[in-house]
Amino acid sequence: MRTLTSTGFIITLALTISISAHSQTQPQLNFMPMPASVQQGVGQLAITSSFSVTNTGVHHASLDSGVQRFLTQLSQQTGIPIRAKAGSAATLTIQVEHSREAVQKLGEDESYELTVSDSGAKLSAATPLGALHGLQTFLQLVEITPAGFAAPAVTIKDQPRFPWRGTLIDVSRHFIPIDVLKRNLDGMAAVKLNVLHWHLSDDQGFRAESKVFPKLTGMGSEGHYYTQAEIRDLISYAYDRGIRVVPEFDTPGHSRSWFVGYPDLASNPGPFTVDDENGPSSVTDPTREETYKFMDKFVEEMGKLFPDAYFHIGGDEVDPKFWDGNPKIQAFKQAHNLKTNQDLQAYYNQRLQKILEKHHKLMIGWDEILHPDLPKTIVVQSWRGQESLAAAAKQGYSGLLSYGYYLDLMWPAARHYAIEPMSGAATTLTPEQQKLILGGESAQWAEWVTPEIIDSHIWPRNAAIAERFWSPQQVADPASMYKRMYAVGRLLEYLGLTHYSARDRMLQRMAGDGDITPLRVLADVVEPVKDYNRWDDAKGPIDFHSPLNRMIDAVYPESETSRQFAGLVESYAKSGYKDKAALTQLRACLLEWRDNDARLRSTLQQSSLLQETIPVSQNLAMLGAAGLQALDYLDQGQPEPELWKTQQLAVIEQAKKPVAGLLLMVVAPVQQLVEASAVAHN
Amino acid sequence: MRTLTSTGFIITLALTISISAHSQTQPQLNFMPMPASVQQGVGQLAITSSFSVTNTGVHHASLDSGVQRFLTQLSQQTGIPIRAKAGSAATLTIQVEHSREAVQKLGEDESYELTVSDSGAKLSAATPLGALHGLQTFLQLVEITPAGFAAPAVTIKDQPRFPWRGTLIDVSRHFIPIDVLKRNLDGMAAVKLNVLHWHLSDDQGFRAESKVFPKLTGMGSEGHYYTQAEIRDLISYAYDRGIRVVPEFDTPGHSRSWFVGYPDLASNPGPFTVDDENGPSSVTDPTREETYKFMDKFVEEMGKLFPDAYFHIGGDEVDPKFWDGNPKIQAFKQAHNLKTNQDLQAYYNQRLQKILEKHHKLMIGWDEILHPDLPKTIVVQSWRGQESLAAAAKQGYSGLLSYGYYLDLMWPAARHYAIEPMSGAATTLTPEQQKLILGGESAQWAEWVTPEIIDSHIWPRNAAIAERFWSPQQVADPASMYKRMYAVGRLLEYLGLTHYSARDRMLQRMAGDGDITPLRVLADVVEPVKDYNRWDDAKGPIDFHSPLNRMIDAVYPESETSRQFAGLVESYAKSGYKDKAALTQLRACLLEWRDNDARLRSTLQQSSLLQETIPVSQNLAMLGAAGLQALDYLDQGQPEPELWKTQQLAVIEQAKKPVAGLLLMVVAPVQQLVEASAVAHN
Repeated sequence: MRTLTSTGFIITLALTISISAHSQTQPQLNFMPMPASVQQGVGQLAITSSFSVTNTGVHHASLDSGVQRFLTQLSQQTGIPIRAKAGSAATLTIQVEHSREAVQKLGEDESYELTVSDSGAKLSAATPLGALHGLQTFLQLVEITPAGFAAPAVTIKDQPRFPWRGTLIDVSRHFIPIDVLKRNLDGMAAVKLNVLHWHLSDDQGFRAESKVFPKLTGMGSEGHYYTQAEIRDLISYAYDRGIRVVPEFDTPGHSRSWFVGYPDLASNPGPFTVDDENGPSSVTDPTREETYKFMDKFVEEMGKLFPDAYFHIGGDEVDPKFWDGNPKIQAFKQAHNLKTNQDLQAYYNQRLQKILEKHHKLMIGWDEILHPDLPKTIVVQSWRGQESLAAAAKQGYSGLLSYGYYLDLMWPAARHYAIEPMSGAATTLTPEQQKLILGGESAQWAEWVTPEIIDSHIWPRNAAIAERFWSPQQVADPASMYKRMYAVGRLLEYLGLTHYSARDRMLQRMAGDGDITPLRVLADVVEPVKDYNRWDDAKGPIDFHSPLNRMIDAVYPESETSRQFAGLVESYAKSGYKDKAALTQLRACLLEWRDNDARLRSTLQQSSLLQETIPVSQNLAMLGAAGLQALDYLDQGQPEPELWKTQQLAVIEQAKKPVAGLLLMVVAPVQQLVEASAVAHN
Repeated sequence: MRTLTSTGFIITLALTISISAHSQTQPQLNFMPMPASVQQGVGQLAITSSFSVTNTGVHHASLDSGVQRFLTQLSQQTGIPIRAKAGSAATLTIQVEHSREAVQKLGEDESYELTVSDSGAKLSAATPLGALHGLQTFLQLVEITPAGFAAPAVTIKDQPRFPWRGTLIDVSRHFIPIDVLKRNLDGMAAVKLNVLHWHLSDDQGFRAESKVFPKLTGMGSEGHYYTQAEIRDLISYAYDRGIRVVPEFDTPGHSRSWFVGYPDLASNPGPFTVDDENGPSSVTDPTREETYKFMDKFVEEMGKLFPDAYFHIGGDEVDPKFWDGNPKIQAFKQAHNLKTNQDLQAYYNQRLQKILEKHHKLMIGWDEILHPDLPKTIVVQSWRGQESLAAAAKQGYSGLLSYGYYLDLMWPAARHYAIEPMSGAATTLTPEQQKLILGGESAQWAEWVTPEIIDSHIWPRNAAIAERFWSPQQVADPASMYKRMYAVGRLLEYLGLTHYSARDRMLQRMAGDGDITPLRVLADVVEPVKDYNRWDDAKGPIDFHSPLNRMIDAVYPESETSRQFAGLVESYAKSGYKDKAALTQLRACLLEWRDNDARLRSTLQQSSLLQETIPVSQNLAMLGAAGLQALDYLDQGQPEPELWKTQQLAVIEQAKKPVAGLLLMVVAPVQQLVEASAVAHN
């Protein structure tokens, strides 16, 4: 599963784990998110096939099924069939005080306390939601020991920092089937996320069945949509896991898919299609009364289908050209004294907000919806940043941070992890204003994912973001985060997620009959290009039907091998280039990289999908050779020849350029070795 | 996926592929089973997202859904979303002449012809069954090339050698959920197997819901059984894939689970339980009329639930002590002039056969049911061997061979592959008698499997057995078989089977936080003990509830790394120890093995599940060192010192002994090197 080093060589880093939340002398346990308070005890609770759970407090169907899932997952993690035997004292006793809301509400009590001793465990919580979280914490405690599987003795008191902890999944750009969403809900529950923000419509597809407006999916989905029965099933699945489902129907922009079946909603004439990225697009026409009649019926139907109190109307990135180009709309603006398109959108949102209110829904939307004419009940989701969020809070508006949590930008986990909702302008808020910052959401936009890929784009990085939303602000050490993130990442595979296991299958597809071992070596040291570089490289509209079966699609967003190699170079440097153990490990890595291209070349040549990676493989070989030579100079304490250094740095510069959308992540540490070897160290 | 060499070094064997079925000059294609006739052409058919299928002949629901599955699988294999565009000429044209039986019959026409050229493909078949097989053949043709995915030009005429090609899956000893059976049915369809023999009852559990006798599962299944709705669903799933489902309800032996709810059926007093292997057991009492009344109602109900013409009554291994110990049964034998217990069982079977006949079922049972008093319509399934099968055929009875195809015995694929139903006494049969040999069945007995493990115990070895049943007898070259078996094994993972991917998850569970790379190196060179050695090692009754989470459970039944290493030693020997390329590869392997224990040791020590493998890891290190030294002697052409050789052979003898149920499969080739180095070769 964990292929941190699939190189055949162990890289062991001396991780300096700082205890973040509360100082402890024991080794840090692999929680993610880290609980608010952890007190380690003495001894451990053995996990055997006679493990059992009893609930002595309030019962609730979601807790009963949660306990069953807990036992199944415990079995999966340990390989031990767990069967409760009648009459035996329960290993884990659960005590819950109150029931929970029939429709999960923002801000319900999610706290719990978990005590584990060598004789048993006790989990108490105000509500079933807290108990569900506590069960997940218990699963993260279980580890293999020389004496069998066990949970160490510990006392935990835990509650979330923010009440709204979400993940947005875009199912419009690429359709994501229900079973894939379900396994991701399992993953979200495992790290205590509590909102699925379901981005159900966008230009490329409308995915939720409407019986009132059947042409929305009938013409706007290419047959890929969720029936209302499937939607109800997913909402119930999420509720059982303590997760709210907030639907987003993006309007007035990002809404071409609505117009395929209902072109009258658009600001310019159709016909429209979801299929052709070069074809006509549009945004909703906010000047026609029919638009509001449509939205009224639509919100009425969808408001019943989605029971959550919040209804997301999108509101982002409205392309002004469609309003500017329509004389009737211009006339309407003048007649209603709406000076700018922002004013027109605010007019639209105000009317939409009244429709939502009529149907007992609270409005949530992206930054652009913020306008003083809207009531303070709305929630602003910020893709722009903490400043924007703080500005909203100062005006009395609630907000969520999504800036910095876009998983599709392929950032390393540590970069997401460092984004703090309460930083920047938020530090200047009054305590009352600070409470308006409800939390945040990670976002998985779906331009570059399929059901096969999506898990690895979300996980395990999403666990680090979940910790940012749940754990105390001072839990922020990246080294500790990485250790714990990979630990929880391993557990997630037992839930059925495929974030690690899908890669081999994709590599094998590209390699055909070829052995994938050397291909793994290459895949382990590259990352996809960052931010919007892949969009930029596409040079024009993306064809959402083209295959996503290249190396850039198969590799993990973050190269753990490269991160560990860089750490090893760092610690070798800190030793003044004296640490022979580090030297041996560095040599082994570099040697494998140097020789890998020769092993891999024929496989790359034989495959249309791999040919584009030949230069990457060559660059890796050159970096391996350069690094080995640098190590020799460093080890001998001889400065390198100037000519050699110049040549190597040229090679290194070359290797920094992305090829086939891939970044070779070991360039920087190899450069560090080469530059260091220019100075004598003996 | 394919971890043939997860060592970081490529072992490329110069496989001498003999063309088995028909001589061809081109490289052999990766079919399994090999078609009866293959004629390779020139060029290839490109597989793109515009790939489409049309059916110009007879339509049938199972073919329509088969085409959909074909397109899905083609997408999975290639990563290319396939969407048929209206108006485009079909890439693959299917032409079927007749429909198929509403209940699949033994001996329906399964032949097909498939022609692929660079402009398109044509598949013609007498029935939808043949077309379904042809679609599987097409999927096996698709490969990645320098110009994209493609199917090479070819003309195939194909039909099965035997009409009954089955796999038995025991779901009694360990319950196997429906979804796991379904993915295995997908695997069976991929290699053209056409019978699922569903071993639904045994001492340890009764798994099929009876509404007439609800205590069968109510008391005899520990809650693990299939509802009738699930059974109907599975039968329909199998039918769609051209697979018959033959239920087995084992009687009068292997039937303790019946007696938990219905103790009156037993030959000695209960109470009985499925749970306690040390508790009382029994066999059915064939002397009570109530037994036959019970069986009449039971067969009536199950005969309707399972539409297949055949009904398997087991009949194997009746423990005589339960009849011998019951005076009433002894008296019955005397009164009816039944001299032996075999006669008593024949009496039982005759009466059972009449009940089956009344309910329009043909009887099938294991060797022991063969008795001249039974009609010639019965089918004998032989676990005893070809002699037994031939003897039955000489008496006019139809038969199936299962001897040699027990997947749970952990044999290498080549050993199963070499078992030929028509060999031995079968060669002395007349052509008419030979026709009575209907085919064979592999058998997956479930003492040592769970849903997590079962795929790797069945696949890919079952594909080699499937070839034995389908392909011409002369298709028998093991080197070709291995190449093609691993190719189809890779494709099976895209169907959702987990025969390769589950191993990493199990290794990670055992390793905890440890890196699994060195654990893979160890797992790659071991195999579980063979035959009934694991049963013998258990020393007493097996506890079917104990965890199957050890190394012996995780490893593949056959070590491909060891097979390839042995081949490399062989080819190095054939070169007179001159082949420097082979030498380099051998050295790389041995070096990794020598050094692996040091990398792995702390992980092994930290895990209760891995501690037992410490001696295996040590032995591997010693073999690596011995092999490296032997290579040095061989390469230098110096005979080794006698003392060294004596010491090494002692180490090797030690390493031959199974530890923790594991056999170190590289012992023999290392021994070969050590012994060879005793003689100078320069």
